[in-house]
Amino acid sequence: MMKFIIFCLVFLLSATSTFAFGQSKKRPNIIVFLVDDMGWQDSSEPFWTEITSLNRKYHTPNMERLAKEGAKFTNAYANPVCTPTRVSMLSGMTAAHHGVTNWTSPAPNNNTDALDKQFGAASWNYNGMSPVPNIPHTFHATPFPKILKDAGYFTVHVGKAHWGSAGTPGANPYNMGFMVNISGHAAGHPQNYLGQENYGNLPGKASWQAVPDLEEYYGRDTFLTEALTLEAIKALEQPIKEGKPFYLNMAHYAVHVPLQADKRFYQKYIDTGLGESEAMYASLLEGMDKSLGDLMDYLQEKGIADNTIVIFMSDNGGLSLSPPRGGSPHSQNSPLRAGKGSVYEGGIREPMLVKWPGVAKAGSVVNQYVMIEDFFPSILEMASVPSTEIVQSIDGKSFVPYLKNPNLSDSTRALIWHSPNKWTTDDGPGINYKSAIRKGDWKLIYNMRDTSFELYNLKNDIQESHNLAVHYSDKVKELGQLLSDKLRKWRAPMPINKTSGQPVPMPDRYD
Amino acid sequence: MMKFIIFCLVFLLSATSTFAFGQSKKRPNIIVFLVDDMGWQDSSEPFWTEITSLNRKYHTPNMERLAKEGAKFTNAYANPVCTPTRVSMLSGMTAAHHGVTNWTSPAPNNNTDALDKQFGAASWNYNGMSPVPNIPHTFHATPFPKILKDAGYFTVHVGKAHWGSAGTPGANPYNMGFMVNISGHAAGHPQNYLGQENYGNLPGKASWQAVPDLEEYYGRDTFLTEALTLEAIKALEQPIKEGKPFYLNMAHYAVHVPLQADKRFYQKYIDTGLGESEAMYASLLEGMDKSLGDLMDYLQEKGIADNTIVIFMSDNGGLSLSPPRGGSPHSQNSPLRAGKGSVYEGGIREPMLVKWPGVAKAGSVVNQYVMIEDFFPSILEMASVPSTEIVQSIDGKSFVPYLKNPNLSDSTRALIWHSPNKWTTDDGPGINYKSAIRKGDWKLIYNMRDTSFELYNLKNDIQESHNLAVHYSDKVKELGQLLSDKLRKWRAPMPINKTSGQPVPMPDRYD
Repeated sequence: MMKFIIFCLVFLLSATSTFAFGQSKKRPNIIVFLVDDMGWQDSSEPFWTEITSLNRKYHTPNMERLAKEGAKFTNAYANPVCTPTRVSMLSGMTAAHHGVTNWTSPAPNNNTDALDKQFGAASWNYNGMSPVPNIPHTFHATPFPKILKDAGYFTVHVGKAHWGSAGTPGANPYNMGFMVNISGHAAGHPQNYLGQENYGNLPGKASWQAVPDLEEYYGRDTFLTEALTLEAIKALEQPIKEGKPFYLNMAHYAVHVPLQADKRFYQKYIDTGLGESEAMYASLLEGMDKSLGDLMDYLQEKGIADNTIVIFMSDNGGLSLSPPRGGSPHSQNSPLRAGKGSVYEGGIREPMLVKWPGVAKAGSVVNQYVMIEDFFPSILEMASVPSTEIVQSIDGKSFVPYLKNPNLSDSTRALIWHSPNKWTTDDGPGINYKSAIRKGDWKLIYNMRDTSFELYNLKNDIQESHNLAVHYSDKVKELGQLLSDKLRKWRAPMPINKTSGQPVPMPDRYD
Repeated sequence: MMKFIIFCLVFLLSATSTFAFGQSKKRPNIIVFLVDDMGWQDSSEPFWTEITSLNRKYHTPNMERLAKEGAKFTNAYANPVCTPTRVSMLSGMTAAHHGVTNWTSPAPNNNTDALDKQFGAASWNYNGMSPVPNIPHTFHATPFPKILKDAGYFTVHVGKAHWGSAGTPGANPYNMGFMVNISGHAAGHPQNYLGQENYGNLPGKASWQAVPDLEEYYGRDTFLTEALTLEAIKALEQPIKEGKPFYLNMAHYAVHVPLQADKRFYQKYIDTGLGESEAMYASLLEGMDKSLGDLMDYLQEKGIADNTIVIFMSDNGGLSLSPPRGGSPHSQNSPLRAGKGSVYEGGIREPMLVKWPGVAKAGSVVNQYVMIEDFFPSILEMASVPSTEIVQSIDGKSFVPYLKNPNLSDSTRALIWHSPNKWTTDDGPGINYKSAIRKGDWKLIYNMRDTSFELYNLKNDIQESHNLAVHYSDKVKELGQLLSDKLRKWRAPMPINKTSGQPVPMPDRYD
């Protein structure tokens, strides 16, 4: 009898995996390790063809380790600010399409655009993304963690969420398909990184940004990055014990301001001669990198590293406003121009790494451009889960083919950035009221203020210092037309010209 | 081929349930519906032999429905205040044993005892219960939800937690074995019941008591009780869909102060002539009862009511301080004496109902006395989960035998209450520095202030108005000895006499 039971069990297990999932391997665990406001050069792992002074300035040994064990993407993109990126990731859509084009306020119904003399506000979705329909000023989409959960994945969110304003369903990670939520809510940055200060949870002092859920570490010398790592590891115990595949959304609050010293690493950077603010920033970075290493060590200990995919990404370019950053303003992502908030490369190009044992070759490099909305179809493909029951039409394309063959390339695809918003009170380089499109090595920027264009060839000019618009008017027309077609199709929000009362014209309306 | 798979599957499922769980039925879902500060008479379902004016004052149709479908316990007890009860429930231990004898402050390392001229503070565990060892001022115990989780239950906490102070692991339901936590943290009451006021989460105004996790309802007309119910139902979707047994700890913040009107029911009570505060209290009660009904309806809709155990309980007696309650002080639990904080029956006797289809006979009544620490072994027995790997030695006894046979009785068991604390700044009836023991119908109270005794026969004198101590000195000696033996064995905390510097003597040291 017992033999027959065992025979049935073995037979069924193999039958299930073959028939139900269409593959013979166990479904992989997936970790997205998402950093906040980290620039493309904020790492000792070089993502450019040259090793820069920034690569030498920062120490991220675990990113180096991850790059050695997986694939490095040198042309990975996100949106210029965080909520648009986080919504693109969860919805599989580009920002111009989902309409969440600026960061969402924790307070509901609060357009975060700064006031402007020339323009009235675009009708963007300033309450963020919603997993249910008919919530005012939100975009309704099915988040992929919900699809993973429905397919049997144990889904865990740790850290910053920031998909929607308080008072809307998207503010709560639980509504987005996560079974465990630690410290995710409507706020976009931590009030305080210090356990000694209860991460901001002090009576009478707590703001919207006080970090929830970490009571265990109140009053202790545990930096926020470390507390989140410890909690993430705790949360994984359950699915690992049950042999259930998991999805971990490890979304660090670091390295967003407020700049505070992660004491485990701060003094070391002071000793190398950095000023206080840059030493704090470097300590935030290395603390984040330590978390990555701790998670990788944990996977190893548990014997599941070989069946766990680790995806490293940042949500927008490094902050380049100075202060609070040190150095000259907008120099902090060199060789890239500008930083967070900008459609120049400094605002959107990201350090991206993917380890998938048995699929992505260790140490491989992918130069194809990819973008944050690609995470949705890629992760579902990795999990072998079909995305049939979603309400949105996705724009992302799976990057799994590039993991299997890093030499593949596609120069016909167009990526689009759209920022009909006023992020800073004063315009900066590539910041406020811009759209951009990249196709092949060409990138066109549309300046809504004066309906002018900039055209760059990124292959020769990664700094975006040589505007070729007047020399390549056909290219401007081609990309301007393509950008306009897409923005029209998606009914992308546009600012309103206060004088005319009309929306800013589409980029194909140039004379 | 497919037929053989199905045959194997059916065979295996039946084999698994027979061999692995030692029973042929699917493991039941379990809901503990725990109300805060609800008195024994705060219901239209009578728990005494007579129908009282309080039974007529309040409307709780869903408690009546639950009583009709299950068993009613007329002698169920908790501790005089909330944290001791919640810790007893999760640890299976009596308060004198776990040493968490008063409510815990959300702020860590904060003894909540009021200052006293006669006594210095007892060394009670004022940081609460901890699921890990070596946390200062906590009691280390294994919470039963963790055991259920380890055994494959999907564990959900909704509402008030209050097992420990912020900064200790016990503050976080996730550490206590819950896979989902909605709104549970270190605080013991809500800052605000109103969605319009974001449940207290207003920048610059939020206190420790601001309710976490309900961003979805901010700014809306959703009373806290309703929001928690909606979230609980959402949380159950996952295990129901997966066919996994669940444990739901539905721990309402209602009916704790602040008294606020649940508008769905408030006007009705005003119309019957109640004053503002009592109408608010009645509306809190009926809103809580509506939640019970909504959950029962949901179980019905999902077709799982027949395999779901529902246990109704309150955590201590009704608040009898006036104000904030209406009426004369300490009259609100009549016929019972006093209320919350007291070792008189008004502070400790609770409305308890248990529905277990197929086991507890519908409409049955259990008169055996039981206590909150009994929940631990009872629930594990219900779930057929052995409790082998726990660190504490439990005091509770399973009440399952009384569900199977309501006529069973045991007058040899002793229940103990222990409050070496100063809960109110002024002593009240049975409040501050008391211990008590019940065995059979006899109850002895030990007054630490003057080492005096009160003895009552509850069968004849549920009001505790006739102190029989001088008439039954043998009974006083017998119960005083038993109480002392237990307190000594457990090293129960005792207040320190400021004059002598010595702890208050044990009750067997009377002259």
